[in-house]
Amino acid sequence: MYERDHIRQIAGYVPGEQPDSSAIKLNTNENPYPPSPRVMARLSDVQPFMLQRYPDPSATAFRGTAARIHGLAPDQVVVTNGGDELLRLAFATFSDPGRPVGIVSPGYGLYSVLADLHQAPIAAVPLTEAWQLSETTADRWNEAGAQLAFLTNPHAPSGTLFPTSLIEKLAASFRGVLVVDEAYVDFVDPSLGYDAVPLIARCPNLLLLRTLSKGYSLAGLRLGYGLGDARLIDPILGKTKDSYNVDAIAQMLATAALDDQAHAGLSWDAVRREREVLSRRLRELGFDSTPSQANFLLVSMPAQGPRAFDLYTRLMDYKIYVRWFDVDRLRDKLRITIGTPQEDDALISRIKQILGAS
Amino acid sequence: MYERDHIRQIAGYVPGEQPDSSAIKLNTNENPYPPSPRVMARLSDVQPFMLQRYPDPSATAFRGTAARIHGLAPDQVVVTNGGDELLRLAFATFSDPGRPVGIVSPGYGLYSVLADLHQAPIAAVPLTEAWQLSETTADRWNEAGAQLAFLTNPHAPSGTLFPTSLIEKLAASFRGVLVVDEAYVDFVDPSLGYDAVPLIARCPNLLLLRTLSKGYSLAGLRLGYGLGDARLIDPILGKTKDSYNVDAIAQMLATAALDDQAHAGLSWDAVRREREVLSRRLRELGFDSTPSQANFLLVSMPAQGPRAFDLYTRLMDYKIYVRWFDVDRLRDKLRITIGTPQEDDALISRIKQILGAS
Repeated sequence: MYERDHIRQIAGYVPGEQPDSSAIKLNTNENPYPPSPRVMARLSDVQPFMLQRYPDPSATAFRGTAARIHGLAPDQVVVTNGGDELLRLAFATFSDPGRPVGIVSPGYGLYSVLADLHQAPIAAVPLTEAWQLSETTADRWNEAGAQLAFLTNPHAPSGTLFPTSLIEKLAASFRGVLVVDEAYVDFVDPSLGYDAVPLIARCPNLLLLRTLSKGYSLAGLRLGYGLGDARLIDPILGKTKDSYNVDAIAQMLATAALDDQAHAGLSWDAVRREREVLSRRLRELGFDSTPSQANFLLVSMPAQGPRAFDLYTRLMDYKIYVRWFDVDRLRDKLRITIGTPQEDDALISRIKQILGAS
Repeated sequence: MYERDHIRQIAGYVPGEQPDSSAIKLNTNENPYPPSPRVMARLSDVQPFMLQRYPDPSATAFRGTAARIHGLAPDQVVVTNGGDELLRLAFATFSDPGRPVGIVSPGYGLYSVLADLHQAPIAAVPLTEAWQLSETTADRWNEAGAQLAFLTNPHAPSGTLFPTSLIEKLAASFRGVLVVDEAYVDFVDPSLGYDAVPLIARCPNLLLLRTLSKGYSLAGLRLGYGLGDARLIDPILGKTKDSYNVDAIAQMLATAALDDQAHAGLSWDAVRREREVLSRRLRELGFDSTPSQANFLLVSMPAQGPRAFDLYTRLMDYKIYVRWFDVDRLRDKLRITIGTPQEDDALISRIKQILGAS
């Protein structure tokens, strides 16, 4: 009745199920290992006056730590209420309402939902059959008149890693702001030498998104950050973000988490090892997956096996949650988060049971 | 360079100074008393898995508690990352870009900043000389074509309380959504019997904003909420808010705070008593203030005294922070948050010292 016509006509984002803690949850790409003990230890440092007063609006301590770790200046860092807030702020800061926004398809569904909210037509460039970027991507975004484009790297839901040379070329060719959403970057094999941060010095239109949700096991805390040229960061920090967008406890715990690179690194190693194991075990059962540099696998069904949607619902009966997308090119696949070896054992056992019974 | 022209041309919101904890901070209307011990006790219940996983996107536990306390249904409650987020979401949900938004002047500066961000012209209706609502307020908002209007009640920065009868009349006359920002409502004298919540059943366009920042001493935690007809709440909850907008710790601590009405009530009583004391002591020094039902006073300067801006900066030299606004009708006044009796003693002593020296 009072809702804008525009809002009435669009659909909201539907997050993955959040079952109770007894479930095996392989559907929203959380880290299966706990956060740093230093994070938990800092909880005892929370003092009443920290809660009484407004938090630091610019999250100075966290930005200092992030700047040090990434070899940047603090004015090249902005902290947000999860990575999602930075995505929304990219629209508010860089894309006039009504202007198209560039994405690749398939991709993270939230980009399209935010585009709808912002009344931005979508300029979607399909990935190739091998889940690689089309060479015409930047041209097609430019032709559409996009001031803003999003690319997840490693890509979701395929897990494909685009090399820095390709990111640099894309940023150089695209006329608007390129947000490279590195939500899963911590799980990239270090031997690949992937690091997009040095591109910031050469690409004034490149905004990197990082989050503590996955790599630092802090999805519940809501802390993301952006890295980019100070001229990109400044209007977000000073104008478009809510003044007090990140609470005092989140700032404190997240700073401790980011500072404990050694602890986080152990979980990244463990996820990478288990990624190989799970990928192999699924392949042995006839489920192929694309090579993934993220903490999930995009899995195809065996020729004679169940349909993806059916397997998804059957697993849910056993309280094992994976993700199925009602999206072109994805309906015959499942996205499975890498769990602990024990969780993945349970998954494999149930899949065997379902295959045997079908 | 990449910033939207529109964003380049507007100014961001400038929050009050956030000095270190040794300062006497009477500039941003925090509660001078600590939050409930039950809030602090819940910190020891934070478990690693709560941080590993995404938080409840709809803050079910908090909404249940709020619904019970206010005598509403949970679908009449939405939880936001501070009240500021609800203000922004009111624009996104109810006001088409370019449509004017109704406010009164002077008022909370963030409304205008958010209007600028949303490219909404401002339909500002001046308060009367006695800080009362003009009778033509709704008519003027309607004539401007506003789909959305904001009123702070008790009003900031004057402290004036508009009675529920007036709120109901305004909501009935205004054709858009009326957001009544009750950030300071907990400090209203209970003998006045003010309660706008029952109006929700009769006013489908009334959205009440509440926050735990002031009344529950949790400004650092960032938790606000909206109360209204389920048809107003639903699109915010399902479409316009970020999916995971409030973190798991904030949800848990805020629920404990709201549940401990007795503790919060003690701080409200203490602030009300001190409001009378401070108002009287300032008046004795020649500083009049408008009758306030909030946790601050809007103070005029004595005829022969210092200018407001000078007193503001002189107090800052002594690490006492109050608020001065570079805004019409406010440049000759200071807004002073009610502190503890000890803090207010220090304020009075310094003012006497400054007056004696000037």
